Amino acid sequence: MKKRTLLATALLLQFAFAAQAQQEPVNLDAVHRIKQEGLQNSQVMQTAFYLTDVSGPRLSGSPGLMRASEWAKKQLIDWGLQNARLEEWGEFGRGWEVEKSYIAMAAPYYQQLIATPKAWTPGTDGAVNAEAVLVHLEKEEDLEQYRGKLKGKVILTKIDEKAETSFEADAKRYTEEELHELAMSLEASRSQSRWTPERIAAYRARMALLSKANEFFQQEGAAVLLSSRGGTHGTHFTSNGSPYAPDAKPTLPELEMGLEDYNRIVRLLEAKQPVKLEVETKTRFFSDDLKGYNVVAEIPGTDKKLKDEVVMLGGHLDSWHGSTGATDNAAGVAVMMEAVRILQAAGFKPKRTIRIALWGGEEQGLHGSRGYVKQHFGDPATMKLTKEHEKFSAYYNLDNGTGKIRGIYLQGNDAVRPVMEAWLAPFHDLGATTTTIRNTGGTDHLAFDAVGLPGFQFIQDEIEYDTRTHHTNQDSYDRLQADDLRQAATIVASMVYHTAMRDKKLPRKPLPKPREAS
Amino acid sequence: MKKRTLLATALLLQFAFAAQAQQEPVNLDAVHRIKQEGLQNSQVMQTAFYLTDVSGPRLSGSPGLMRASEWAKKQLIDWGLQNARLEEWGEFGRGWEVEKSYIAMAAPYYQQLIATPKAWTPGTDGAVNAEAVLVHLEKEEDLEQYRGKLKGKVILTKIDEKAETSFEADAKRYTEEELHELAMSLEASRSQSRWTPERIAAYRARMALLSKANEFFQQEGAAVLLSSRGGTHGTHFTSNGSPYAPDAKPTLPELEMGLEDYNRIVRLLEAKQPVKLEVETKTRFFSDDLKGYNVVAEIPGTDKKLKDEVVMLGGHLDSWHGSTGATDNAAGVAVMMEAVRILQAAGFKPKRTIRIALWGGEEQGLHGSRGYVKQHFGDPATMKLTKEHEKFSAYYNLDNGTGKIRGIYLQGNDAVRPVMEAWLAPFHDLGATTTTIRNTGGTDHLAFDAVGLPGFQFIQDEIEYDTRTHHTNQDSYDRLQADDLRQAATIVASMVYHTAMRDKKLPRKPLPKPREAS
Repeated sequence: MKKRTLLATALLLQFAFAAQAQQEPVNLDAVHRIKQEGLQNSQVMQTAFYLTDVSGPRLSGSPGLMRASEWAKKQLIDWGLQNARLEEWGEFGRGWEVEKSYIAMAAPYYQQLIATPKAWTPGTDGAVNAEAVLVHLEKEEDLEQYRGKLKGKVILTKIDEKAETSFEADAKRYTEEELHELAMSLEASRSQSRWTPERIAAYRARMALLSKANEFFQQEGAAVLLSSRGGTHGTHFTSNGSPYAPDAKPTLPELEMGLEDYNRIVRLLEAKQPVKLEVETKTRFFSDDLKGYNVVAEIPGTDKKLKDEVVMLGGHLDSWHGSTGATDNAAGVAVMMEAVRILQAAGFKPKRTIRIALWGGEEQGLHGSRGYVKQHFGDPATMKLTKEHEKFSAYYNLDNGTGKIRGIYLQGNDAVRPVMEAWLAPFHDLGATTTTIRNTGGTDHLAFDAVGLPGFQFIQDEIEYDTRTHHTNQDSYDRLQADDLRQAATIVASMVYHTAMRDKKLPRKPLPKPREAS
Repeated sequence: MKKRTLLATALLLQFAFAAQAQQEPVNLDAVHRIKQEGLQNSQVMQTAFYLTDVSGPRLSGSPGLMRASEWAKKQLIDWGLQNARLEEWGEFGRGWEVEKSYIAMAAPYYQQLIATPKAWTPGTDGAVNAEAVLVHLEKEEDLEQYRGKLKGKVILTKIDEKAETSFEADAKRYTEEELHELAMSLEASRSQSRWTPERIAAYRARMALLSKANEFFQQEGAAVLLSSRGGTHGTHFTSNGSPYAPDAKPTLPELEMGLEDYNRIVRLLEAKQPVKLEVETKTRFFSDDLKGYNVVAEIPGTDKKLKDEVVMLGGHLDSWHGSTGATDNAAGVAVMMEAVRILQAAGFKPKRTIRIALWGGEEQGLHGSRGYVKQHFGDPATMKLTKEHEKFSAYYNLDNGTGKIRGIYLQGNDAVRPVMEAWLAPFHDLGATTTTIRNTGGTDHLAFDAVGLPGFQFIQDEIEYDTRTHHTNQDSYDRLQADDLRQAATIVASMVYHTAMRDKKLPRKPLPKPREAS
């Protein structure tokens, strides 16, 4: 190697070191105090207990969500947070809850069945004892053959899904290889969705056909509909069956069940074995308050110049109704509440104001966070922005289940990468190692991202999210991983703390164009 | 090497080859025909459908077991078997079945719960709406504090088990390493049981304490007992709660449930959150016929000298009551029925008589097979043997779930190893490769082994037997593995065929000593 080349290399190295030296500062003393409180004195499972076991299902608009909201507000006040309130985000619609749910096969023999009324469906007209009828439905004309034959009957529609036996574990964590692949993503928005345009079109056509069929069943005087969106071994997925709008047309009572119970009835009917069912459900609608609410509370900032600036953290408090929404998303709420508890308990005085928001209406389309962002920061349709938009640093969200934090999605924001890498560094030993340029979707950080504000969702281990808990009748307290939630709360507390103490707000991406224009 | 030594070696080798040449004959033409029928024209899932979906739960003494027994007898006749009959094996006790089962939490909010009445327990006194009470029970004296406080209440006893999340698959198959270890077992009876004497003693003490507690709860006028023997995600284990003897004392209504539902109530009560439950169960006892039956049918032997000799195959037809006993043991019954169907369809004329037996009363202690063996072959207590004992070749059993056959337990019988190895050889490509000297327990082959008759249970892949299906509320048709059952029926048909065609009966172990004497 020639001397000149050597010199050039030395200069390059120096430059590289210089770049390293401009590294984002990390307060390791604060990290230590946060770890102490978060890992040694965790209350996250106690919080989760009140959100799940004690509050119950927290469907948007339901008494369960109101119970949890009031409890969370009181708990945040007890921890010393300020300005705690239920803040209206807009008009939601009717509340709804189950008051009774019973279904069993009465012939050819008695067998209790596991099922859940679809959200916002009416109850049965008392106890129904009726024959089951299997409807083969490929196209609308198929319905004609059932005309005059469905009065008082329980209707099932043939489905293709089988209750397969899996030789893979229900629960899993990211492997190093998978994290590496995430970290090396070429672009933010590479869609990995299985929802090809063809599949979306087929799905929509099927939904339209089912909708017509349900009108037909109602006209024909059917008593109850049964359906299955999958799930095995006593686990089944749940969803909404009717609109929650106050003026929505009434529908038939409908229950969802797992594949084994559903397909057993289908097989019997296909073999011309008559099946009788006993069904009794009661559901209740609530129309006294059609508004939706978020729970909001603050640790006020203490720096003269920066205290009007805001760092936010949150997760959605509403859930589906089949269980107590433990991993979707009491987990995220408990972690976020625990993060502010940690900061309070450790006695920090943040420069910027830290604001926690527990969203309502997420399951019906991120309504709570979108309403909040529109009121406070700007309208993504017009991109008319508020003064608060200027004062906002970042929003951190947790809503991918009970799994611990393995890193963070940068949501296409290259400028925050060195910041996040520095802040995650003290937590590599807890498994949080990865930054990825990738976007992730489906959670409340999108409401912030939509108006050009830094909004982030963490990378979380999946655990049983897709297999057992996400929108199922089995998403209850026991499915929570205590160690994972302790870890997550500790990391979030540190991320939020550093965002609140940073000299500048977090760097932003260029503002998006108004949605109306696109 | 000296010349004399070389010669000796050559002679030894010759002897070894001679031993090889005496290998058990295998009729590969028959194997081919059996594989054709068993693998290409399988009806095993159709048979399983009638045993499970159509017949329902098949608890010993129940109408469901009688339905399945009558159906199986008719089906065997339809396939051309002879002497098909329900053969009484002795006195069993009362039949029982569930006519209604409903339980839900009514406060602090409504939540349907998944539970099953324990077998032979009475139903509730109509619809019960009652407070739940958590009993802490370490020793008998602990009960005193509850005196006068349990009238009309629903009782739960604190348990230690948690609903853990597993990162291992529910379903698994034997690895080559595990099969190798089985094949290399040093001895037949090495106990691998986790039931150490200490654990047995602790279990018995706990059972005695629970029994006293249940008497106390009954005296105090409690309305319902709840308990859990484990299970997660909507799966729970089921068992019997009361004796089936006709003169048994009545007990309290009792339901078993999974850990999540059970422990949710426990957590709420421990946190002083009042819990109200709605429970309504109806059960029915049957005392009109206290006898137990096996289903027996034959393919008569055709060889003048050998037709009085018998080869048997079977599995138990009775099940627990929480589901339809698909893997325990409709699977084994469907395979054994399919094996004789294959032999009939292929048009074989066996030398010895082939007899299939579908046992009753297995779940309560191998009653059906033990009664049958005692009537036909001998009494293990006295070792007084019958003439039929002389005429018996072997019994093949299948009762370890839905998994395919990976080999056979030799049950300590060294003399049958070369026979079994030869007969399994044409099925190595189907995964059945292993013979092991080991005993295996818990299934009906033990009844034959107990009087010195060759009785064998196959080595089967476990699939979900321990995790999801064995004695659970989820042991239903969908948990069956169609390909595994096809494979098993094909192999059993060939084993039975070769046993029926063999020059001699299968070699036996020395006769056991009378049990009375030991």
